[in-house]
Amino acid sequence: MTTANELQQRFIRLRENKAFELFVISVIILSALLIGAKTYAIPKTALQIFYVLDIGITVFFLTEIIVRMIADASLKKFFSKAWNVFDFIIVVASLVPVDDSEAALLGRLLRVFRVLRLVSVIPELRVLLNAFVKAIPRMGYVALLMFIVFYIYAASGSMFFHKINPGLWENISISLLTLFRVATFEDWTDVMYETMEVYPLSWIYYLSFIFIVAFVFLNMMIGIVLETLQREHEEFSREHGEGEAAEVHSIEERTMKMSDRLERMELLLADLVADSKSSGK
Amino acid sequence: MTTANELQQRFIRLRENKAFELFVISVIILSALLIGAKTYAIPKTALQIFYVLDIGITVFFLTEIIVRMIADASLKKFFSKAWNVFDFIIVVASLVPVDDSEAALLGRLLRVFRVLRLVSVIPELRVLLNAFVKAIPRMGYVALLMFIVFYIYAASGSMFFHKINPGLWENISISLLTLFRVATFEDWTDVMYETMEVYPLSWIYYLSFIFIVAFVFLNMMIGIVLETLQREHEEFSREHGEGEAAEVHSIEERTMKMSDRLERMELLLADLVADSKSSGK
Amino acid sequence: MTTANELQQRFIRLRENKAFELFVISVIILSALLIGAKTYAIPKTALQIFYVLDIGITVFFLTEIIVRMIADASLKKFFSKAWNVFDFIIVVASLVPVDDSEAALLGRLLRVFRVLRLVSVIPELRVLLNAFVKAIPRMGYVALLMFIVFYIYAASGSMFFHKINPGLWENISISLLTLFRVATFEDWTDVMYETMEVYPLSWIYYLSFIFIVAFVFLNMMIGIVLETLQREHEEFSREHGEGEAAEVHSIEERTMKMSDRLERMELLLADLVADSKSSGK
Amino acid sequence: MTTANELQQRFIRLRENKAFELFVISVIILSALLIGAKTYAIPKTALQIFYVLDIGITVFFLTEIIVRMIADASLKKFFSKAWNVFDFIIVVASLVPVDDSEAALLGRLLRVFRVLRLVSVIPELRVLLNAFVKAIPRMGYVALLMFIVFYIYAASGSMFFHKINPGLWENISISLLTLFRVATFEDWTDVMYETMEVYPLSWIYYLSFIFIVAFVFLNMMIGIVLETLQREHEEFSREHGEGEAAEVHSIEERTMKMSDRLERMELLLADLVADSKSSGK
Repeated sequence: MTTANELQQRFIRLRENKAFELFVISVIILSALLIGAKTYAIPKTALQIFYVLDIGITVFFLTEIIVRMIADASLKKFFSKAWNVFDFIIVVASLVPVDDSEAALLGRLLRVFRVLRLVSVIPELRVLLNAFVKAIPRMGYVALLMFIVFYIYAASGSMFFHKINPGLWENISISLLTLFRVATFEDWTDVMYETMEVYPLSWIYYLSFIFIVAFVFLNMMIGIVLETLQREHEEFSREHGEGEAAEVHSIEERTMKMSDRLERMELLLADLVADSKSSGK
Repeated sequence: MTTANELQQRFIRLRENKAFELFVISVIILSALLIGAKTYAIPKTALQIFYVLDIGITVFFLTEIIVRMIADASLKKFFSKAWNVFDFIIVVASLVPVDDSEAALLGRLLRVFRVLRLVSVIPELRVLLNAFVKAIPRMGYVALLMFIVFYIYAASGSMFFHKINPGLWENISISLLTLFRVATFEDWTDVMYETMEVYPLSWIYYLSFIFIVAFVFLNMMIGIVLETLQREHEEFSREHGEGEAAEVHSIEERTMKMSDRLERMELLLADLVADSKSSGK
Repeated sequence: MTTANELQQRFIRLRENKAFELFVISVIILSALLIGAKTYAIPKTALQIFYVLDIGITVFFLTEIIVRMIADASLKKFFSKAWNVFDFIIVVASLVPVDDSEAALLGRLLRVFRVLRLVSVIPELRVLLNAFVKAIPRMGYVALLMFIVFYIYAASGSMFFHKINPGLWENISISLLTLFRVATFEDWTDVMYETMEVYPLSWIYYLSFIFIVAFVFLNMMIGIVLETLQREHEEFSREHGEGEAAEVHSIEERTMKMSDRLERMELLLADLVADSKSSGK
Repeated sequence: MTTANELQQRFIRLRENKAFELFVISVIILSALLIGAKTYAIPKTALQIFYVLDIGITVFFLTEIIVRMIADASLKKFFSKAWNVFDFIIVVASLVPVDDSEAALLGRLLRVFRVLRLVSVIPELRVLLNAFVKAIPRMGYVALLMFIVFYIYAASGSMFFHKINPGLWENISISLLTLFRVATFEDWTDVMYETMEVYPLSWIYYLSFIFIVAFVFLNMMIGIVLETLQREHEEFSREHGEGEAAEVHSIEERTMKMSDRLERMELLLADLVADSKSSGK
């Protein structure tokens, strides 16, 4: 029991060690470089070294996550943090072997995601990703509106243009892809000139689409800016701003009491003066 | 009379029912999926099912809008809300039959707009669309300025370049389209290199156009940002901000009265002290 | 003398007449439509009508500006307003005849600029253009910085790549145009792949250029946003904001005086109490 | 000793002379024009004039920096300013001769950077560049996040697509370049359609990449805007804003003291009144 406890204490110390953190980052970067290197044509001998290195990295990642699991009080506590779940999935997923020819490509792909562990290890990147995730809900409804616009244009486009160029307008899925291409201005005039030969007024279709999408996108962008500004403003006022407003409010209440007291005091004084005058007579 | 009233009450309850709202949303999505599915090559039997479904949806939409009409006190009250008019037009427009070969394409196109009913049913989307509509007037004059710039460039472009490539510069309409293409940077250098062979200085025409349009567009964007920021700021100050300013103002007035009273009191006190001194003598 | 004065009064009334303003706008729009119509292939008879209309419009514009000149106290006062100079130049420039074959194209081009008179006639557009003009100085230095970046890249580009494709890199002017094309992402990879065949590392040249230009452009955009925000903020504080700060400052001074007076009064009171106690003994 | 001191004083006066500054700017611009002119095909005689001019400019720049070195108290003080180091490197680097055929291209390239001296000479440009440099750290982590996204997509892209088109996906470096091209929307659909023939679902790869990159880029942009706004806001509050908050705080403290004093005074007054009543009896 004591030994287990001692081991846990040692693991907690290890987890919080700055040097160990740097070592973890180094291993992640080495793993990323390995993934990159494998995309080049490399000699057989290098491949074998890579294979050994890959096993080493996999074992290290597995050990590191087990250490962190033990360092935490319980498995429940460990999995209650989203970043731990994130790390756990990445580590377990990369246990898929790369030598078995069938799952090799999958194994290699899953190893690519190890680079994402950089995000969970470096605190500043974690803050950034958290900010991104928080901005998503606000953008959800704008994205839905955008999709409705795309859907209506894709359905009409497919309806009218599918005979002109089935490669671009055959059905609603392909039309959606074509419209996304138009939205990125990628050779959109080629698409337009083609349909204008059959429907000379179809430029209205493209221009109205581009204007609506640009307008909605602009509002989406402003939405995020406002959201972020508001959040920062609230944080700022929580730290500094309340001071002034709170002080003004307390001054307001204090001066009201002072005013009442002064009124009472003036009455007393007037009384005194009257007494003094009458007694002085 | 009582029965009519009872019916109206029941309709109001139905209209405000959350489950009914979700059912309406489901029917709209089903209608959207149907429209999308029809753009694929589908077997004859499926087409017949679709036809029956389409009739069902049309009848449902018609019933739903009649329910809402009766639930409202009068037709005038019903049509006084812009969203009701919006729904009414969409529902009535999609009554155009799709089997009659002549109006079939029109009928199908009008059915596409049923997807827009999602906007009128989901409150968050309604808020978004309202915000868009409100931003339009502020942008109107910028759009007019933009159009003047396009018009001048299109007229001069058509004047000088119409013999070089009639497909791009034949008349002012086609020139406007070509300039919009240049503004989206879509193969704009091809357009420029072509005219530079005849007029080597025509790059001035394109570059000045791009700079002016980018500049006006940037100001348009900033216009919307400022408009939105200002609106949110006003709403915020209406809710919170007035507090502090109002308190400061009331403190200002109270301290003025207190100051006057203190002056009077000091005179009284000085009087008393003088009396006391003289009587004490 | 009286007649001249009366005439001037009548002209001032005419200039300020709302209906006359609308009529001027209509004539400008008619003139714009005429310019647009001329870019189409039109029958001979229509051309003759256009010719008469053009003379009519020219005479009208000339009369209108003379009316405004007389309505103003002196020519000096008239030309002291920038918009009057703007109108005067446009009207005088469009006196160039369009029938004389030599200057016809110039005459037609100068008539295009009549559309710009819409800007000087509609107050809202005048406000917009004034705002644009005011934003220019702040952007001047950013534009200079941008030009230095372009110049350095164009000089190096011309130095290294002029033998690869003289059409794109022959000298510094052509290189500047090519770099502007790269900055708009127009077929920039074609330009890059071509030079990468000779200098495989030339992607550094393009990527660093794109990053620097995007970064400077972003700052330029933010510069305008900040400039505009600041200007609006100053205007707002000039109208409303001073109120609270001024009140707080007057409260500060008043409470200081009250505090001094209270101190004096307490001393007086303490004196009185001491007297009263001693006399009461 | 005195002579050396006198010389230094004269150099300081020279360095601070406005006319001398303008002359330096003129020489830099002349040097820039020379660099530009050399990219044109120029006659032999002109080349010789250019050669003499180049020597003149090099000598002038060398003299100018030596004057500034002597004007400063010590070399250490001179090199403690980053802009001096910047100028020194540019001047020394351009000492590489341009006539020696081996280093000629390098010499010419280094001379191009002389244009950058405009930035160090014009104060407004120096302020701009300082602002850019300050914005870099904040963007560092966003750039790292962006690179992680690019790296993961490039590794997977190279893994799956390298056989489809080795020119675009051969290894991770080439894939990174291809993805940058996709991010700039440059013929990205050609890249997509090619891989969609083998993997019909690969549009998910491109669309998810475009959305993520656009989202991260947007946040990067907002980051700079917020950073700049915050900095300007802090500067503004340091100059003006503290006033009101500080005054409110001093009012808060003063009214607290006044309130205490009033309480004591009322007790005294009540005492006096009681005494007066009892003595009056």
